[in-house]
Amino acid sequence: MSAFVVPGWPLRGGVAGSRRSRALYPHHGSAGLLRRRAFPRCTAGDVRGSYTVGRRLPSETPPPLPVPTDYVLISETAEWRRLVEHASEIDRLHLRELMQDVDRVRSLRAEYDGIYLDYSRQRVTKDTIELLFALARRARLVDKIRAMQSGAHINVTERRAVLHTALRAERNASLVVDGTDVVRDVWRVLDHVREFSERVRSGEHRGATGKPLRSVIAVGIGGSYLGPDFVHEAFRTDPEAFEAARGRHLHFLSNVDPVDIKRCTQDLSAEETLIVIVSKSFTTAETLLNARAMREWLWSEMGRSDEVVRLHMVACSSNVPMVEKFGIDPRNTFEFWDWVGGRYSVCSAVGALPLSIQYGFPTFLRFLEGARSVDANFYDVASPLAGNLPVIMGLLGVWNLSFLGYKSRALHPYAEALLKFPAHIQQVDMESNGKHVTLRGDDVDYAVGEIDFGEPGTNGQHSFFQLLHMGQTVPCDFIGFIESQYPLCIEGEPVSNADELMANFFAQPDALAYGKTAAECRAEGRPEWLIPHLVTTGNRPSLTLLLQRLDPYATGQLLALYEHRTAVQGFIWDINSFDQWGVELGKVLAKRVRKQLNESRYFGRPISEEFNASTRDLMERYLRGQVGCVFNEPFDYHRDTDTGRSPL
Amino acid sequence: MSAFVVPGWPLRGGVAGSRRSRALYPHHGSAGLLRRRAFPRCTAGDVRGSYTVGRRLPSETPPPLPVPTDYVLISETAEWRRLVEHASEIDRLHLRELMQDVDRVRSLRAEYDGIYLDYSRQRVTKDTIELLFALARRARLVDKIRAMQSGAHINVTERRAVLHTALRAERNASLVVDGTDVVRDVWRVLDHVREFSERVRSGEHRGATGKPLRSVIAVGIGGSYLGPDFVHEAFRTDPEAFEAARGRHLHFLSNVDPVDIKRCTQDLSAEETLIVIVSKSFTTAETLLNARAMREWLWSEMGRSDEVVRLHMVACSSNVPMVEKFGIDPRNTFEFWDWVGGRYSVCSAVGALPLSIQYGFPTFLRFLEGARSVDANFYDVASPLAGNLPVIMGLLGVWNLSFLGYKSRALHPYAEALLKFPAHIQQVDMESNGKHVTLRGDDVDYAVGEIDFGEPGTNGQHSFFQLLHMGQTVPCDFIGFIESQYPLCIEGEPVSNADELMANFFAQPDALAYGKTAAECRAEGRPEWLIPHLVTTGNRPSLTLLLQRLDPYATGQLLALYEHRTAVQGFIWDINSFDQWGVELGKVLAKRVRKQLNESRYFGRPISEEFNASTRDLMERYLRGQVGCVFNEPFDYHRDTDTGRSPL
Repeated sequence: MSAFVVPGWPLRGGVAGSRRSRALYPHHGSAGLLRRRAFPRCTAGDVRGSYTVGRRLPSETPPPLPVPTDYVLISETAEWRRLVEHASEIDRLHLRELMQDVDRVRSLRAEYDGIYLDYSRQRVTKDTIELLFALARRARLVDKIRAMQSGAHINVTERRAVLHTALRAERNASLVVDGTDVVRDVWRVLDHVREFSERVRSGEHRGATGKPLRSVIAVGIGGSYLGPDFVHEAFRTDPEAFEAARGRHLHFLSNVDPVDIKRCTQDLSAEETLIVIVSKSFTTAETLLNARAMREWLWSEMGRSDEVVRLHMVACSSNVPMVEKFGIDPRNTFEFWDWVGGRYSVCSAVGALPLSIQYGFPTFLRFLEGARSVDANFYDVASPLAGNLPVIMGLLGVWNLSFLGYKSRALHPYAEALLKFPAHIQQVDMESNGKHVTLRGDDVDYAVGEIDFGEPGTNGQHSFFQLLHMGQTVPCDFIGFIESQYPLCIEGEPVSNADELMANFFAQPDALAYGKTAAECRAEGRPEWLIPHLVTTGNRPSLTLLLQRLDPYATGQLLALYEHRTAVQGFIWDINSFDQWGVELGKVLAKRVRKQLNESRYFGRPISEEFNASTRDLMERYLRGQVGCVFNEPFDYHRDTDTGRSPL
Repeated sequence: MSAFVVPGWPLRGGVAGSRRSRALYPHHGSAGLLRRRAFPRCTAGDVRGSYTVGRRLPSETPPPLPVPTDYVLISETAEWRRLVEHASEIDRLHLRELMQDVDRVRSLRAEYDGIYLDYSRQRVTKDTIELLFALARRARLVDKIRAMQSGAHINVTERRAVLHTALRAERNASLVVDGTDVVRDVWRVLDHVREFSERVRSGEHRGATGKPLRSVIAVGIGGSYLGPDFVHEAFRTDPEAFEAARGRHLHFLSNVDPVDIKRCTQDLSAEETLIVIVSKSFTTAETLLNARAMREWLWSEMGRSDEVVRLHMVACSSNVPMVEKFGIDPRNTFEFWDWVGGRYSVCSAVGALPLSIQYGFPTFLRFLEGARSVDANFYDVASPLAGNLPVIMGLLGVWNLSFLGYKSRALHPYAEALLKFPAHIQQVDMESNGKHVTLRGDDVDYAVGEIDFGEPGTNGQHSFFQLLHMGQTVPCDFIGFIESQYPLCIEGEPVSNADELMANFFAQPDALAYGKTAAECRAEGRPEWLIPHLVTTGNRPSLTLLLQRLDPYATGQLLALYEHRTAVQGFIWDINSFDQWGVELGKVLAKRVRKQLNESRYFGRPISEEFNASTRDLMERYLRGQVGCVFNEPFDYHRDTDTGRSPL
């Protein structure tokens, strides 16, 4: 457990951010960089000393875990410094040369259970990989992976385990955490999901007017939505899943913008619709507001009765009392646990329930099996790390950001069915690693937390690839499949449609890596004045994942691969990838604004001076507009209790 | 015209990229930065001199336009250097302080035709804005805007005018370019669109089996898809447009992945479907392949006749001969012109045709009117630039990237109907400004070309906002509306659903700007060891756009605003925002791969040694898989001509 150091111990002096970068960024030089860097570090002098990050009082609560006496920032280790020096050697090499070295090219790859990973177009040599493994050893990566697997409370700020992998453990596995066998709990809920989804699909569970429930609206936001939506799209055109879903519809309602409600309900009949409310706490503001809106919709079409709610609404939540208060049958509550983070929850009831109703439980099981397969690779730390796909991808991620300075990266699945995968991974990765302190609470003084984006190929090529070729360097991941879900050969074409797609898949990484020289342009006879506009510098790194076919199993594999890539990076960087304290401030301020809007609109109160002039003027302008609907009785903060979001 | 300098004149010596940065990045210091920077600049020494960017032979073709004798890179001007110095002053200020200055806050805003822009949360003072205007004068911004408006060939590498604004000019306006009145051409096509869309909507134009055509599939990729798709989503829930679209369906087929075909056609009947093929050249590989697939689908359902194609397929294209060869009636070809770039084409027939069929031509006209409104603001360079919204936004964009070093930016529309707006602007902005040379062909030695991304609010808050608060600094644009399309008041709630959405809209910019100090956390009684994890540094810039309501007019306004923001940045940076040579290399390589796949799959040829070992091994693995369909007669490159993409 001592792999994880804890917040609280006094910092070894000064504000981390003021440390001059010395050997860290030999090319960047002075402290000025730190001020200019994209992390707007406020040093102690700023804001009249009110920022005391790094300078704190002795801890009053005993730290949860012991601190190793040899603790240093990862950037202060010899292994890190060696990589910094190595980066300047790498800077003298171009991928054109590196790709000519067949021995190198053939060693920078790995394979596991049908996933073929080729990372030869990364700006690395075999030495780089060795140095990265040395860094991993220094960061005690293996210990941290074991700790995660064993259920230790590695989410130290929330004092929780991180066990999304347990959600897809085998039924006969066992994992006791804090006195409970979590795998048994997982399968209890999965069995419940299977049983309930079968009753809905068969028509045994019907709606209040006796009709079978053909449509599902899953209400949830963030992790309660992006994961299931990505999997839904990935399943949708798999031939078997497609058959299983015939005649059924699944929609996701996430945004509090009432337009989203309109979009979800406009083609549906409430009598045939089941609503799944997804919120672990059953207090997420947007979700509860939408839950009430959905309940109103059901009542407006079928009458205002408890039975309507009991038959048409179910919940994925851990807060059974709140669920019951809302009117949902507690027997139709599907649990998930504290050790499941929102963005890691798609394998829990959050995904299992809506997806099993739509596609059948067997389809969802295959998805879990795929994720389990890559979990096994990730957890197999007894085997050489060179065969551990998430570890390789995570180390390369650290290399690209912290050592080569690439602040963004792009994900290009060459499969239309994965069109929502980049958005899900955007959340998984950015919400996990967009942090600025180590577990112990020290400011990081190295870059962490990439911007992730992407679009399926070939669409992205016609959108932003111009910039990928000629603008900033953005490391890319290309994901492709050997077999298409829908082979199509059109007579007269040189290749099938899938081959056409994949021709681009094979070409783009080389185009990015090689670029095009002025001499090559000249040799083609291009006019001299145009040549600078045609030259691309190349040397832009990518990696390629080639899988057999996109089916539920492969979808699970890809999910787990990218979840664990994020975890590996967080382990190296010594940050907590599993909390998300940064969103709190926005919620608190929104609560204040909500109160102000209510008090101004319905009770004529002026806007408080606690808001700055810009926000006051914006709110005034806003309030002058029509709200467009009326409350019979406006909520009165002085009389009624606003508990943040009560479910009544 | 001399605002635009031309490629071709001998460079004033040396490779631009080797210039030591001197005063440019005083904080970044040495040349090493240039090697480390995200632009993988290959200096002359690399790759054994084969890169000759900047070092070129005297031009053999006369340059298209005269060169001013005082030409320098914009980064070498006094105005630029003053901004660099100013940036280090700004670095000592925090937005918390800046937002207290009511005079400053109230001056950093502008308004135009219902659009309210508040940029007080940018990391600027009033001095910064003055310095930016001085830079704009030095860059001859006003001349460049006038040149664009007048139809000069500002797209110097393709020798074309840039006149997407003419697409929404008033009918009685006139603009003669190269001897032709382009506005008259625009209205000729718009009238044709109106006439044809009315015939389809009324049922006068029917399908081959006599049925009215209720569904439209628009086939196109990149600019031929992302713009129309964003507008489609924006219109979809506007109450009037919704009524006009009742009973009709519009889908976009873009990807060459055959799964996209399946997704588009699975719920449609060919007898009731009209297919619009969008490709200016009528040679875009993916689009033509999909066009053939669509034609096969129509034929498979209605028989293999010319009449089926004539009645069910139309084209937006300038290549009438190719269109006719495909079998489409040339009278059903809707033209657009060389001076309309793909990513700027949504106001042309590309958007007009499918959107008018779906929503009625009057709806689309209102959209054009909105765009025209902001064009007028942008072109009104006789008035003070402080009232020119695109100019302000463009200058702030340059400030944020080139001077403050923020490599990405995010776009958060607080309106579910704008869910596809960020993806469209991602293309518009990244494909336009992801460049590395000036118009003249010199390497830029300053950062250009941001990464753009975004999600509608509040969804993004539950996804990546953690990183926006605690990770890299990413300047944000928040777009909100005073009136909702669907007001909803749920009894017992403190506020309407729209007010709930907007409470977040008003809160997030202040959360990003102010952050939270350790002292504030301590005052709340948080445990000491947790405090570093709760502190956010704030000082994260944003701007706010508040409009009255989201309707077709406002949609057009927003489109034009962001199109022109991109143009302003390109003008300041002296790059060509209107070409896209970077995508060429990928297309050429894909062509080679396509040929190899054909020759290996159907004629047993081994994979050529011209591919590197990684690509060879990947392709071999791929070819071992099943293609899943057969050609009656495989295309033979030695016998048949592959013209890249023949439409037959």
